[in-house]
Amino acid sequence: MNALLAFPLDLPPRGRLEALHGQLRAAILDGRLAGGHSLPSTRALAVSLGVSRNTVVAAYDRLLSEGYVSARHGSGYAVASGLARTQAKVASGIGGDRRLAPHWRHAVMPARTGAPASYRHDLRVGFPDASRFPFDVWRRLSARALRSLSNKVGTYHMPEGRRPLREAIAGHVSFARAVTCGVDDVVVTSGAQQAFDLLARILVTPGRTVVAVEDPGYPPLRAAFEATGASVVPVPVDADGLVVEQIPPAARVIYVTPSHQFPLGMVMSPARRMALLEFARRHGAVVIEDDYDGEFRYGGRPLDALQTLDREGRVFYVGTFSKSLFPALRLGYVVAPPWALAALAQARQVCDWHADVLAQDTLALFIAEGHLARHVRKMRRIYAERREALIHGLVRHAGKLLTLQASDAGLHVAALLPPGLHADELVQRAVAQDMRIEALSGYAIGETAPNGLVFGLGTLPVARMEDATQMLGRLLRESR
Amino acid sequence: MNALLAFPLDLPPRGRLEALHGQLRAAILDGRLAGGHSLPSTRALAVSLGVSRNTVVAAYDRLLSEGYVSARHGSGYAVASGLARTQAKVASGIGGDRRLAPHWRHAVMPARTGAPASYRHDLRVGFPDASRFPFDVWRRLSARALRSLSNKVGTYHMPEGRRPLREAIAGHVSFARAVTCGVDDVVVTSGAQQAFDLLARILVTPGRTVVAVEDPGYPPLRAAFEATGASVVPVPVDADGLVVEQIPPAARVIYVTPSHQFPLGMVMSPARRMALLEFARRHGAVVIEDDYDGEFRYGGRPLDALQTLDREGRVFYVGTFSKSLFPALRLGYVVAPPWALAALAQARQVCDWHADVLAQDTLALFIAEGHLARHVRKMRRIYAERREALIHGLVRHAGKLLTLQASDAGLHVAALLPPGLHADELVQRAVAQDMRIEALSGYAIGETAPNGLVFGLGTLPVARMEDATQMLGRLLRESR
Repeated sequence: MNALLAFPLDLPPRGRLEALHGQLRAAILDGRLAGGHSLPSTRALAVSLGVSRNTVVAAYDRLLSEGYVSARHGSGYAVASGLARTQAKVASGIGGDRRLAPHWRHAVMPARTGAPASYRHDLRVGFPDASRFPFDVWRRLSARALRSLSNKVGTYHMPEGRRPLREAIAGHVSFARAVTCGVDDVVVTSGAQQAFDLLARILVTPGRTVVAVEDPGYPPLRAAFEATGASVVPVPVDADGLVVEQIPPAARVIYVTPSHQFPLGMVMSPARRMALLEFARRHGAVVIEDDYDGEFRYGGRPLDALQTLDREGRVFYVGTFSKSLFPALRLGYVVAPPWALAALAQARQVCDWHADVLAQDTLALFIAEGHLARHVRKMRRIYAERREALIHGLVRHAGKLLTLQASDAGLHVAALLPPGLHADELVQRAVAQDMRIEALSGYAIGETAPNGLVFGLGTLPVARMEDATQMLGRLLRESR
Repeated sequence: MNALLAFPLDLPPRGRLEALHGQLRAAILDGRLAGGHSLPSTRALAVSLGVSRNTVVAAYDRLLSEGYVSARHGSGYAVASGLARTQAKVASGIGGDRRLAPHWRHAVMPARTGAPASYRHDLRVGFPDASRFPFDVWRRLSARALRSLSNKVGTYHMPEGRRPLREAIAGHVSFARAVTCGVDDVVVTSGAQQAFDLLARILVTPGRTVVAVEDPGYPPLRAAFEATGASVVPVPVDADGLVVEQIPPAARVIYVTPSHQFPLGMVMSPARRMALLEFARRHGAVVIEDDYDGEFRYGGRPLDALQTLDREGRVFYVGTFSKSLFPALRLGYVVAPPWALAALAQARQVCDWHADVLAQDTLALFIAEGHLARHVRKMRRIYAERREALIHGLVRHAGKLLTLQASDAGLHVAALLPPGLHADELVQRAVAQDMRIEALSGYAIGETAPNGLVFGLGTLPVARMEDATQMLGRLLRESR
């Protein structure tokens, strides 16, 4: 119980900001923090919780930007009125969550993903630029798909996906990434996230299966595997990608981003690729190859996918249309070895039966008519220009304070900081100047995170890169 | 290993037809059964597997209708050519599946759900009639939603769903079903199936949690809970619905269909409703109320939902648009008590982040503009006429051989058979006459199933009910 509030706050060792924000928001929504009440001062709450004051400030700021609290004239924050739930069925205290399975007892409401437009300069990772997407084409194809669907919507469809879409995807990955597959090897998923979730379900024996992931890496992948009861073990990466020698021998599932390591950006070397497949062969393990932005290469010919090199059916190749088209679409896929197809399809059926049929059919037409290839070509040029402008700007304005990570692919660029500059502090200071950047620490899986920043190319046009990098350079110099 | 085939067939004690069909299909697809090869005779295979010949005949028939095999001139069946996977990466034998988690090792490819049009008379359960759906309206609203979405698709959205849709759903269930909820109590799901899956994830501690389900009941619900490691216990139903006294005291989750028991059709009595809530209170259990076709009532005022009666936040109310609109849409929802909302939203984020945004926004407009209410009113009239025609026909042509189950709601009607008539046999004989009916045994959870049939109202127009019931009556008389 926190003496400053009439209810307990329970912060985990990691993700305190998220937890604090989520628990305060929940208290506002369920009426434990009533409209008009003052929040405790940031200093007092920080002391009583044993967290840094920055954490409390950031949590309050987020509540402010979301409209849950308002700033008081003078100082402090007050809870906004009229937000408490209409339903007065709040379990007393938070004891109710013992009805939840242990893994979910400390769940907090996911934070609102701020729209990219809400900052002057937004260099966050993971947002493609959807403003150039040919929505008129999509609308036309969607209407056509709906017309021809009208007599087929009354039934349930196959969990592995609509055949025309699976055909289009098989053609796309065979052509674009030399992934060897036929239509029957493709399972359509609701984004890459569902692919990870389905793979976690069919591959993980709860409490037994060890899963090796890149560190730093992609946190939502880890969340999916942990939710099914896997032991997730971080394995370091170096300039050649995942350090295969450090994979624990017990690992039976290994997750990698060989085309463009997330978030550092390096390409996995050919030697490491062979070593990884050899590890999998020797230990009877499988590999999940996440090719989340493999379409966007600015250099020469890409290396073969692990899936292409694999001769033994050990690699699951996961792709997504969230980066090449847009995330709101929620469509991705797995190219799976034959021994896993029935389990994958059945797991999908149990989860949610199948993906939205109209979206599947529209995308199938979009790919078949060449719009995907055309859009990727266009966006590749646009991202390449932005990337060049970003890198030039960073070198010019912050060259001595940033070590850029070599990479010639993808939608983000990582950079390491020298000792004395702290990434997390920089992120906070940037927000105060209406600029949104990300620290690599947000992607750390184990205890130690590289001290650095990572910049996304999705939001800022070329014309604003000079201004943004200049501001960043100033911020770095001032923070030394 | 089966002596008649060069690979093993492994049939579980239940669901043999599904397993046999799935394993043969898998063997054809991965080349173990090569194109042009003959299948063993039905008699020989049945003997060698120790199953009834009917099972083998039915599996072969299904492969035939799907095009995996063709009938030979003379007799027998041959594997169709050109079907083996292009990818030659077949793990030797089927040993590969030891890489799968135990629950999924015996997965088979889900069977193709035959389109309703493929039989002369199709009386299967679970398909609404989507031919009357106002697709022109949907197309127009979809285009409008896409236009206003164009600048928001580059980002990820909230896992609990788009706010306008949650508002529309809260309004809909408050008005139509007197379910007490505000916008924040609604979590949008990809159909009711995902609601069950998310609830299974957050409520089940693998190997520990006991889940009570109605028997007969809805098999996909059971599949979702079993996949998360729950012990699923069948509880009988009688004319008043779930027999609450027979719920095992250890049950912590209880699944019911109080508005219209699936598949028998009775309404849960007020006394049983109170007893169920009292059970939940006494044992600290929660209730999942599945109101899958509650919009379609032909009698008087419906009883209050369990959720409405609940004063302690113990009931999850699950709804779907698969029946009121169409299944291909894949949209449903849970109205959840506050203590479970964060876990539900986080579980959804881990599973697949959020539902297709265009579909969500289109549906929000569809509801807000009154089209849902209008469509439900129209379909209620249509289904009521069909139901009457079906019941009259059944009474006229088979009144002495069928005991209709009382019910004044929903999209199906159940009927029990006298001793001497066997539902499973009737289903087989009907197929031979190009008619598709369903046995109640397909919905049994425990060992004993009621001997009866269940008829769906989604496919056959009124004009054909006379013909269909006449044929059914003849079938029943001939089968005595």
